[in-house]
Amino acid sequence: MNLILLFDDDFTADAARVRLTGRRLRHLQEVHRASVGDTLTVGRVNGAMGTGIILSMDKSGVEMAVTLNEAPPAPLPLTLILGLPRPKVLNRVVIAATSMGVKRLVLLNSVRVEKSFWHSPRLSEENLRDQMTLGLEQAKDTQMPELLLKKWFKPFVEDELSELAQDTEKWVAHPYDAQACPMNTQRPTTLIVGPEGGFIPYEIDKMKEVGFHAVSMGERILRVESAIPALLSRLFPA
Amino acid sequence: MNLILLFDDDFTADAARVRLTGRRLRHLQEVHRASVGDTLTVGRVNGAMGTGIILSMDKSGVEMAVTLNEAPPAPLPLTLILGLPRPKVLNRVVIAATSMGVKRLVLLNSVRVEKSFWHSPRLSEENLRDQMTLGLEQAKDTQMPELLLKKWFKPFVEDELSELAQDTEKWVAHPYDAQACPMNTQRPTTLIVGPEGGFIPYEIDKMKEVGFHAVSMGERILRVESAIPALLSRLFPA
Repeated sequence: MNLILLFDDDFTADAARVRLTGRRLRHLQEVHRASVGDTLTVGRVNGAMGTGIILSMDKSGVEMAVTLNEAPPAPLPLTLILGLPRPKVLNRVVIAATSMGVKRLVLLNSVRVEKSFWHSPRLSEENLRDQMTLGLEQAKDTQMPELLLKKWFKPFVEDELSELAQDTEKWVAHPYDAQACPMNTQRPTTLIVGPEGGFIPYEIDKMKEVGFHAVSMGERILRVESAIPALLSRLFPA
Repeated sequence: MNLILLFDDDFTADAARVRLTGRRLRHLQEVHRASVGDTLTVGRVNGAMGTGIILSMDKSGVEMAVTLNEAPPAPLPLTLILGLPRPKVLNRVVIAATSMGVKRLVLLNSVRVEKSFWHSPRLSEENLRDQMTLGLEQAKDTQMPELLLKKWFKPFVEDELSELAQDTEKWVAHPYDAQACPMNTQRPTTLIVGPEGGFIPYEIDKMKEVGFHAVSMGERILRVESAIPALLSRLFPA
């Protein structure tokens, strides 16, 4: 973790003091090999970033004095809509999207999404929040993304997508009958990326009906965990 | 797999026939649910791509008649040098780089690479070739990358890197004191990406001595498996 993300519960009565246990304590001890007096990069969820100085640390917890006075990096002006990935890659995909600066992530059903994927324990609110936390800690960011689960393709695309994507560029990554994916647009964008195997023609047609256009990144077909950084880096090079 | 990669041993006495067993047979049966008469995308390693028609298939093997008449996608004009990733992510990183079109990949030691990583069974020639095969099958490509293991940082950088990187752009992804990573260069390039935690200043200095320049993709720090697609998509948008 390149930043330790702090939650409201971590703060003690003194608003400039935090006490951490569990995963973050273990990480500080085992990976950072931190000790009393060390200064670390910290940030308050949905708030400012800054530094924390370790005041005390033992097996039961670590106490830090924190100074929070830096703005987190700018979010991407993007809503990313993904065909629900298989459970094995879901965590990695959520971490990748979060670390790239995505602040609204929609996981969507599609014909090519296996029904069983929707029953994965990895879709619990707690696990998804944990993965987004890891993505923020990786990228040095504090702004927790909003994550929406949409189990019904047709009602989402027909009734919700127009409003969600209002006043944004509307792209669906789909290599057939597509224009080249734009470079360095920096404009508010809604980007849809299909599941493994891609969307079926009916699904692409439904998206086109609400104003989406197919874009391609060339002949090579990438795994979703590679396609997302490749697409976002192309649309929004920092 | 979006393409079935064929090796010399797969071809029968008839040069237009192949017989496959093992992983590829199981994949055809379990994922593609293929049957006799089906046409699939195939390619010969380091050769042409085309189609294969299933002539017969049972538990012991599948036989196909193949027609190979299409060129594989163009390789990236890039040598990618990576601080050796931890074994847990090595396979994914090799697949990601291969699927993006990297044709020369160097895994390099660094102070921040744990010594134990060099003893991982994942560094066997067989495993690395398997991962590159998966990357080619993912991207629909046939050209097997060259993969070099460099266990000694200093002799590699002092004695080999200049020649390896001759007449190419020389970049090291390093967020400190760096220029913005170029976009859409399309020029022959040697790109170095550090291990988890980055290179130490001494290592960056050694690279600068042989002509490398530090480039950055902004404030966010990405995992190597995200950083590679993000960097390559920015340097070489298809």
